[in-house]
Amino acid sequence: MQDPPAAIGAALDEIDTPALVIDLEAFDRNVARMATYVASTGVALRAHAKTHRSVSVAKRQIAAGAVGQCVQKVGEAEALVRGGISDVLVSNEVVGDAKLDRLAALAGTARIALCFDSAEQVAAASRAALRAGMELGGLVEIEVGMGRCGIAPGLAAGDLARRIADAPGLRFEGLQAYHGRAQHLVGAAERRSAINGAIRAVRETLDALDRLGLVCRIVGGAGTGTFRNEAESGVYTELQAGSYVFMDGEYAGLEGEDGRPYAEFEHSLFVLAGVMSVSGADWAVVDAGLKSYSTEKGAPQVFGRPDLPVTGVSDEHGKIEFRSGKGLRLGERVMLVPGHCDPTVNLHDWYVGVRDGRVAELWPIEARGASR
Amino acid sequence: MQDPPAAIGAALDEIDTPALVIDLEAFDRNVARMATYVASTGVALRAHAKTHRSVSVAKRQIAAGAVGQCVQKVGEAEALVRGGISDVLVSNEVVGDAKLDRLAALAGTARIALCFDSAEQVAAASRAALRAGMELGGLVEIEVGMGRCGIAPGLAAGDLARRIADAPGLRFEGLQAYHGRAQHLVGAAERRSAINGAIRAVRETLDALDRLGLVCRIVGGAGTGTFRNEAESGVYTELQAGSYVFMDGEYAGLEGEDGRPYAEFEHSLFVLAGVMSVSGADWAVVDAGLKSYSTEKGAPQVFGRPDLPVTGVSDEHGKIEFRSGKGLRLGERVMLVPGHCDPTVNLHDWYVGVRDGRVAELWPIEARGASR
Repeated sequence: MQDPPAAIGAALDEIDTPALVIDLEAFDRNVARMATYVASTGVALRAHAKTHRSVSVAKRQIAAGAVGQCVQKVGEAEALVRGGISDVLVSNEVVGDAKLDRLAALAGTARIALCFDSAEQVAAASRAALRAGMELGGLVEIEVGMGRCGIAPGLAAGDLARRIADAPGLRFEGLQAYHGRAQHLVGAAERRSAINGAIRAVRETLDALDRLGLVCRIVGGAGTGTFRNEAESGVYTELQAGSYVFMDGEYAGLEGEDGRPYAEFEHSLFVLAGVMSVSGADWAVVDAGLKSYSTEKGAPQVFGRPDLPVTGVSDEHGKIEFRSGKGLRLGERVMLVPGHCDPTVNLHDWYVGVRDGRVAELWPIEARGASR
Repeated sequence: MQDPPAAIGAALDEIDTPALVIDLEAFDRNVARMATYVASTGVALRAHAKTHRSVSVAKRQIAAGAVGQCVQKVGEAEALVRGGISDVLVSNEVVGDAKLDRLAALAGTARIALCFDSAEQVAAASRAALRAGMELGGLVEIEVGMGRCGIAPGLAAGDLARRIADAPGLRFEGLQAYHGRAQHLVGAAERRSAINGAIRAVRETLDALDRLGLVCRIVGGAGTGTFRNEAESGVYTELQAGSYVFMDGEYAGLEGEDGRPYAEFEHSLFVLAGVMSVSGADWAVVDAGLKSYSTEKGAPQVFGRPDLPVTGVSDEHGKIEFRSGKGLRLGERVMLVPGHCDPTVNLHDWYVGVRDGRVAELWPIEARGASR
């Protein structure tokens, strides 16, 4: 891994660029705001670590009341358990004996669960649990409108739940019902409508489980764009939001329930970049490009400066055009709000936490690159 | 860094997924093909390490005749010099005393040069060289139609060259004249026309240098899309192609000089992914998404299977639709050709080199994340 881009106590100007910076005040407010909301409902928060890939962030979410963490990958689970996180759900299918054996090995130290959408995988996970002498929790992932993974809700899901409950080494935990596409629908009414569809799918499946006499401890789902809808559904028990700690350009582009820009949370995550060229007539070039932030959800935005659009991105360059009188000078720093926080975080080894204009925390991103 | 996804000698099916795989036969042919072409011209190859970020690849390019390596970042230069590469050009501006001091420190071990497009930076690099007691080579980057970095060709560039030649601790080396945008113009005639513009800018600047009595040892530029144009220009002396070792979806989408698909090089770089869900009616989901390949130049393609388009990509999922009778089964592996090789490589810690169906090489990507 790379060395940290700054030392504790350094001033903002002393952070080497590009760097992944957290505004700790905004981060703390985001964590507290979600915790306060969740505490006001009957549901739990199992924050998603695919956003942050970091033990330090996970611990702060759990200290604020989260019941554990979600991950997508066995490698992320390994990093979190190694860091002391004791309750981890792989909110995803895990295929291959090597991966299942690694996951089962973690169950000696932490409560571990994973998701299924096929009978073949239930059998494979059961064998892995028996090989390790461990027990793994199992959730049935149901298809709720994403068109990705997940078995059909209702009877088919009930049948798979029955298989999990009957499989040696597995315990049936509940349903995974995440609607990822809904998170990014711009209109609040569209998002609500999509989640209403997911809620119907959950209800149909809960009825099937009930007829089978199976107890469903967890119904998990929800993200930063729709968490209130799931929380108020009466059927979801665990929210899996992740991006709320950081926010990003895509979430900030949503419409809120009041018809105004979505402002549930604040931008707390930035890519700090430095101006490396001002040879252009009306643009500057900064030293952060595709290897410092992802752009599949749009170019980053210069924080607080809508007059400075990022109009070109290449591997290691970002071109910023001057739309007002005030440009940028050589060596000046800008804070870029990434379009999509999760893949941006995965490009960095360290979070540089800033408070009162000084580096207050350096948090390693232990699971950076842990996609196996 | 993450552990390697396989051991030497493992079969293809034993490589954990997702993994960054090199077909070593195709890789060797790409290296040899470029080396043979370059040897037939009067120019040199200074292959670009921003593509591969790896000492192992650099050494193979140099063994085949390359005069050294280009990088974009001081961190990449550090990794290469640490690995024994003795001639490195930062084909980019370097701003900030901390970065310049790190670069100057390398000049005790290797021949190091960097680019300039402002007098302010010439002065700063001169001071850094003097602080270190080292000499740094300096190239003037001229604007050749990219609209990014670079000073105007001709007199302005000549003036900057004069400043480099006169600055203590710096030696004037030549011109950086890379036209990045031209690499990705689809039509061969468009690419040639863009490079003809760059050649005119170089000639104008060479005339200015001549009048100033400055010797221009290097004129560097060219990429995988246009290298023949620069090589045959009579003015360029060093080609900076990088992607040619791997190829990617974007380069494969170009039109060649013969009007047929661009086939100078073969795909040698793949993201090996495993099918993790087949619950969909006519699609499968693989375990590699935005954290395993970049998509800003388009989704990856399933190698050899145009009937299996990747139609959806999320953080850790790729959705592959079945357009012919033959689908994919759970656990099956696919080789994905990334849309853009450079930022894809930067997501991984290891190249898994495969020859005759077995893992023959594990090459660390030492400069993964080295964007400072």
